[in-house]
Amino acid sequence: MKLDSNARGVYVIAPTPFHPDGRVDDASVDRMTDFFLGAGVTGITVLGQLGEAPKMTHEESVAIVKRVIARAKAIPIVVGVSAPGFAAICALTQDAMAAGAAGVMIAPPNTLRTDDSIAQYYKQASDAIGADVPFVIQDYPLTFSVQMTPAVIRRIVTENAACVVLKHEDWPGLDKISQLRAFERDGSMRHIAILTGNNALFLDFEMERGADGANTGYCFPDMLVDVVRLSAAGDRDEAHDLFDAHLPLIRYEQQPGPGLAVRKYVMMRRGIIASDTLRKPGAQLSAVAKAEVDYLLARVARRDRRAKL
Amino acid sequence: MKLDSNARGVYVIAPTPFHPDGRVDDASVDRMTDFFLGAGVTGITVLGQLGEAPKMTHEESVAIVKRVIARAKAIPIVVGVSAPGFAAICALTQDAMAAGAAGVMIAPPNTLRTDDSIAQYYKQASDAIGADVPFVIQDYPLTFSVQMTPAVIRRIVTENAACVVLKHEDWPGLDKISQLRAFERDGSMRHIAILTGNNALFLDFEMERGADGANTGYCFPDMLVDVVRLSAAGDRDEAHDLFDAHLPLIRYEQQPGPGLAVRKYVMMRRGIIASDTLRKPGAQLSAVAKAEVDYLLARVARRDRRAKL
Amino acid sequence: MKLDSNARGVYVIAPTPFHPDGRVDDASVDRMTDFFLGAGVTGITVLGQLGEAPKMTHEESVAIVKRVIARAKAIPIVVGVSAPGFAAICALTQDAMAAGAAGVMIAPPNTLRTDDSIAQYYKQASDAIGADVPFVIQDYPLTFSVQMTPAVIRRIVTENAACVVLKHEDWPGLDKISQLRAFERDGSMRHIAILTGNNALFLDFEMERGADGANTGYCFPDMLVDVVRLSAAGDRDEAHDLFDAHLPLIRYEQQPGPGLAVRKYVMMRRGIIASDTLRKPGAQLSAVAKAEVDYLLARVARRDRRAKL
Amino acid sequence: MKLDSNARGVYVIAPTPFHPDGRVDDASVDRMTDFFLGAGVTGITVLGQLGEAPKMTHEESVAIVKRVIARAKAIPIVVGVSAPGFAAICALTQDAMAAGAAGVMIAPPNTLRTDDSIAQYYKQASDAIGADVPFVIQDYPLTFSVQMTPAVIRRIVTENAACVVLKHEDWPGLDKISQLRAFERDGSMRHIAILTGNNALFLDFEMERGADGANTGYCFPDMLVDVVRLSAAGDRDEAHDLFDAHLPLIRYEQQPGPGLAVRKYVMMRRGIIASDTLRKPGAQLSAVAKAEVDYLLARVARRDRRAKL
Repeated sequence: MKLDSNARGVYVIAPTPFHPDGRVDDASVDRMTDFFLGAGVTGITVLGQLGEAPKMTHEESVAIVKRVIARAKAIPIVVGVSAPGFAAICALTQDAMAAGAAGVMIAPPNTLRTDDSIAQYYKQASDAIGADVPFVIQDYPLTFSVQMTPAVIRRIVTENAACVVLKHEDWPGLDKISQLRAFERDGSMRHIAILTGNNALFLDFEMERGADGANTGYCFPDMLVDVVRLSAAGDRDEAHDLFDAHLPLIRYEQQPGPGLAVRKYVMMRRGIIASDTLRKPGAQLSAVAKAEVDYLLARVARRDRRAKL
Repeated sequence: MKLDSNARGVYVIAPTPFHPDGRVDDASVDRMTDFFLGAGVTGITVLGQLGEAPKMTHEESVAIVKRVIARAKAIPIVVGVSAPGFAAICALTQDAMAAGAAGVMIAPPNTLRTDDSIAQYYKQASDAIGADVPFVIQDYPLTFSVQMTPAVIRRIVTENAACVVLKHEDWPGLDKISQLRAFERDGSMRHIAILTGNNALFLDFEMERGADGANTGYCFPDMLVDVVRLSAAGDRDEAHDLFDAHLPLIRYEQQPGPGLAVRKYVMMRRGIIASDTLRKPGAQLSAVAKAEVDYLLARVARRDRRAKL
Repeated sequence: MKLDSNARGVYVIAPTPFHPDGRVDDASVDRMTDFFLGAGVTGITVLGQLGEAPKMTHEESVAIVKRVIARAKAIPIVVGVSAPGFAAICALTQDAMAAGAAGVMIAPPNTLRTDDSIAQYYKQASDAIGADVPFVIQDYPLTFSVQMTPAVIRRIVTENAACVVLKHEDWPGLDKISQLRAFERDGSMRHIAILTGNNALFLDFEMERGADGANTGYCFPDMLVDVVRLSAAGDRDEAHDLFDAHLPLIRYEQQPGPGLAVRKYVMMRRGIIASDTLRKPGAQLSAVAKAEVDYLLARVARRDRRAKL
Repeated sequence: MKLDSNARGVYVIAPTPFHPDGRVDDASVDRMTDFFLGAGVTGITVLGQLGEAPKMTHEESVAIVKRVIARAKAIPIVVGVSAPGFAAICALTQDAMAAGAAGVMIAPPNTLRTDDSIAQYYKQASDAIGADVPFVIQDYPLTFSVQMTPAVIRRIVTENAACVVLKHEDWPGLDKISQLRAFERDGSMRHIAILTGNNALFLDFEMERGADGANTGYCFPDMLVDVVRLSAAGDRDEAHDLFDAHLPLIRYEQQPGPGLAVRKYVMMRRGIIASDTLRKPGAQLSAVAKAEVDYLLARVARRDRRAKL
């Protein structure tokens, strides 16, 4: 099962569960995978930035890929393979695809500054991993400091047949989606799937602008599934009502740094993972921050029953 | 009336109203000032980043300062004087203080990279404008790319008697407020006012962490006044309820770039300013973006009567 | 006399001489202008970055422009007008051109990150100052953090008839010159003058790659004139011999920060300006640094008689 | 043999020789190691930035470490272990030290922006690899965008007993060396070795400011050995004469990007490595650039017999 440009729904970004001593927690990996399946996600992306990928060895990474694929069975697994050099990218891609991954996700190195250098990077990367490996562009300037215009994305799509999905998390980013869809309509770019990230902060309007779904890891992926479904069905007010109920917490979890600690804390409170441990260097929630999250959870629960822990 | 460390409430960031041809719209300046007074703000900050200060000549800047001061009479006016060099900073400070401004706001140049260079900059700036001019530190890394730790802010406060207010808009930033208040409690830093910006995205919790109010320009400053009042009075749930009603729009307006266009569009729709024109280079709202804002306004109005236009 | 694409030779970047108390030193401005004329420069650029432009008020800037133009009479004066907004850029441009300037130099704001945003900036800037004002692109990524590919420069040249000179100080930059000249040969770009900066660190090879001259302020502009002349005449070894004699000092003066202090110190020692004062914030040479410069001067003097002070 | 704070002389930065098809060229690794020994270097640093470390797999990296150690026998081998996460850093450190490395070199991730975050990073890194592993701080802001003040370096040295060497390649950087040596004299910092990089662009004066030697990979390391020796012996003029003879080429090789291609090209021409291949993404020298290097080599050879190829 290979990833293609018809991807839609929710490709949830999976955190990597650790034991308090920092070892990977396999039981939590399984429980989390089961939870995602039950929540109705369409796919799972492992080893993204918020999967703490840079903190793991190659062997650990491959083990997680295999474990999630074995557990998830029926749905596609995408693997984040971003690294400073093509050697590491190729090594992980090869092992992941051999294990049955559906495709890989590649973020640009944060030194790229010109349109040419960005396009060239993706061309070289696709050449390096092989044109038969479908890949996702990760467009996240807030974290990677690389700004891709719609025209650059079109160029990457045009120059690389293996490019099938855009993980869109530019900010502001609504007009970018509209522009890319306009490129498709005017025939200047073939269709790709657009799945949005950035902790779903604009998922409500991103769907209305033409996104195909979400590719993020907000601690209530079940809510993401429903918002995407409602929006795709044209139930605009219902989609926004559900989204707005979660927005105070979405915003809190979207903070760079502590955001992942919030996500893991809530997933632990929801019983999905056993510990909210992050590997170093990683933010830790203070007692007051945890109390704030608890307060937000209680408020969300009044508007969406799922948040009742 | 000089700004001091007892500042509290809402110091609203005033946009600069322009005619469609780009000239300053004096009538709208007056109407906006009246509106702010009626909304219950404690002070007004003119010529901040979102006042399009870098797009104005010295003469235009001074004219606005004088006009708002003349109109506002009873409340303090703070003037953004950030510029690439001390000559321009001093020139505007001198004219603004002579016109009756309460103090100035200074953002760091975006080349500063070390703790020492940041502290040195504020020392030289205060020396240049004169130790009798109260100033506000603008701590906005998202825009200025300068990261100030709590320890650096403490150092600036300690080295400059004229530093009386922190415009806090770091992100994430809640723990920074807690840390600065802890410095005050442990006696290592004198008290300063902390007013928060970043379009109020975290105002609810910032107040609970120890902020004294808001220093931002969200298009419903009347709501900011109420949230600050409710939170200061300990009415936590009421503060959050009101805040959450606006959060979908707050988030939309907080986007860098189009955010100011949203703000001006809503203020125009509210009848506060005559035109939503931005000077070049400035974002323009597409028709679809305007429709999104209209939709958000309608939704907000269901939860807060003020949003009924 | 307007600047055009036939510019060649040395357009020396003039520092701004100050009295020890920070006031502009008019007598030194005159003496320096006379010295430049005597050294055989083709033009003078005032108020560049190393003219400490951001540290001066509009009035001071205009006064310098007028003074140098009045003194220089026969040669073109280019004025750096870079500023955070078009209002200040237009104000200085207008006054400078009215005073008889030959053109202006514009650096990009250091927030530009995409090809489109760079091209758009220059289009808007040229529209704002007027298409009748010839302008120089300043391409200096080391200082401005904006990277322009040859294709972006071609686009700026194509979209703006008033763009006549490239101040080339990219690093590495030799292939960029070759590429731009190839664009001219293949007919995809009209001819512009390329004058190189970056304290002449690669002037030897830049001339051989197709540059028309230098646009920098090394403390021996008389040497720059000779290197440009020798290189243009095809006297390769002589050009390199002279250049190499100065390279140890060129390298020392090219350091960002202390470099300008070195330049002013040497010009003071050469009797060209009365004081080596920089306005704040500005680097100061330590005693040991001055001794190093003295040592370098002595060594240069053994290979080029001009350096005998 | 462990690295300690008495390190001095030249720790040459070794490039990684590749076959034209991209495989590591073991024979060239051996020949290069022999050449370094013959040139009189004190130590060898492998897998630095210019050793193309990010382009290699863990297995390839370990193989090179072992090969160079086996060949070099008597002199210390330092291993660059910089990576985005501690897992990869620890994995390579462990294998390198087990193979007999003398210590490791660690560069800061380019997201660090405050003094605290830099100091914290080195503390966590040293804790992660173990306090028994001597390490080198790589201070190279031009490449890593991280600016360390002398006070931050003092803090790292004080907080980490295993920190024994500073690879100093800040620019400008002479005053930093003076300041660090002043810290030692005033008793506020214990002694560390300072070895300088940045392709030796300021080696002449760095030695006079208190550096203990060079830690860089200029294509004539034999010259570096002599400059360090002459300077340490107080033969100032001789040191500068030799240095100046090479400066035109040093400058050319110091360019980021093409610099490494120049280095490999010259080492190939000197018969030290078999091919000047770089792994992708990597700069390639144009024919005109190669001719420029040839010209520089011919000119250097007139002043230093070593350059006669």
